[in-house]
Amino acid sequence: MIRLYGMTGSGNCWKPAVAMKMLGIAFDWTEIDSVGGETRRAPFLALNPNGRVPLLQLADGRLLAESNAMLCYLAEGTPLLPPPGYERAKVLEWMFFEQYSHEPYVATVRFWIHYLGKREEWRDKIAEARVKGYAALAVMETALGKTAFLAGETFSIADIALYAYTHVADQGDFDLTPYPAIRSWLARCEAQPGFEAMR
Amino acid sequence: MIRLYGMTGSGNCWKPAVAMKMLGIAFDWTEIDSVGGETRRAPFLALNPNGRVPLLQLADGRLLAESNAMLCYLAEGTPLLPPPGYERAKVLEWMFFEQYSHEPYVATVRFWIHYLGKREEWRDKIAEARVKGYAALAVMETALGKTAFLAGETFSIADIALYAYTHVADQGDFDLTPYPAIRSWLARCEAQPGFEAMR
Repeated sequence: MIRLYGMTGSGNCWKPAVAMKMLGIAFDWTEIDSVGGETRRAPFLALNPNGRVPLLQLADGRLLAESNAMLCYLAEGTPLLPPPGYERAKVLEWMFFEQYSHEPYVATVRFWIHYLGKREEWRDKIAEARVKGYAALAVMETALGKTAFLAGETFSIADIALYAYTHVADQGDFDLTPYPAIRSWLARCEAQPGFEAMR
Repeated sequence: MIRLYGMTGSGNCWKPAVAMKMLGIAFDWTEIDSVGGETRRAPFLALNPNGRVPLLQLADGRLLAESNAMLCYLAEGTPLLPPPGYERAKVLEWMFFEQYSHEPYVATVRFWIHYLGKREEWRDKIAEARVKGYAALAVMETALGKTAFLAGETFSIADIALYAYTHVADQGDFDLTPYPAIRSWLARCEAQPGFEAMR
């Protein structure tokens, strides 16, 4: 059976889990204490030299890192990933946007505040990251003012990728009140068959 | 004809350009002064609300952002991207690794030093980013000690994605001397038919 190494509460780890639930793929979950440093110790580094969760282990033992690569692998041939062409490229565009322009700010500020309790101590670097997090949310708001989902009118793994940390942005003190299109989209994601939010 | 909006010297912009050259796809290049702020002004933001190059415009006018999404789109059905399955997933794993764990450090330090001239002024934040850049290079070194290319024995768009900023890492004062597997791999990339390095 597929095994997913992950940390509960991590949006990146939630992504492949929810995709497998939506697609009816059975898997086992192995909890890894990423905050406690378990991903940077030898036993885990032997599985993933990049020292991060999630990590997916296929039934035959082969390993795959990077949450969004997992989403592409799992969703191939399903309605969650359009066939090759422009629409698929837009799904990938949003997934690379997520890892470069959104996660490093929206998820990281949440991590600093919610997990590390550094709201006051790291006020300056939080303020700097917050500007970029809101910039990413503004890009999403513009897109979601035009289409029901990020890559068009159909729910896809791009929505899973961006939902992950957007729906817990408040735990990083991000205020979604001025982003009505994002808030409606969060609700549309939650209404998908089999969808389970992280909280 | 396809149009690529990009900045000369940007590894992210080089990626789709070299892929199109290798695949024999004709395109026009529109130079965008990203360092001078052109990507953050209204005319460009109307094309890409995320305010970044590269930006690909298809012959029919449709737009695509994110260099690695472009690579996937352009390489579909060619030897540069394996068919759906585990090998393709590994290509994507490296491309997400590139945007999350490599580019923000290796490319960013180069940008601060080579373009902005901040080697002394930003010494502390450069030192912090350098640790993470070397960590990414170490992950590559481990992988390239086992296989000829990043995702296996075949050159793919994962190699284009990682070559981009690795081959100019010295412009960010990264020393590749202790990374012999990376240095051999750079030479193997350069020996690919039609391959043109950024410099």
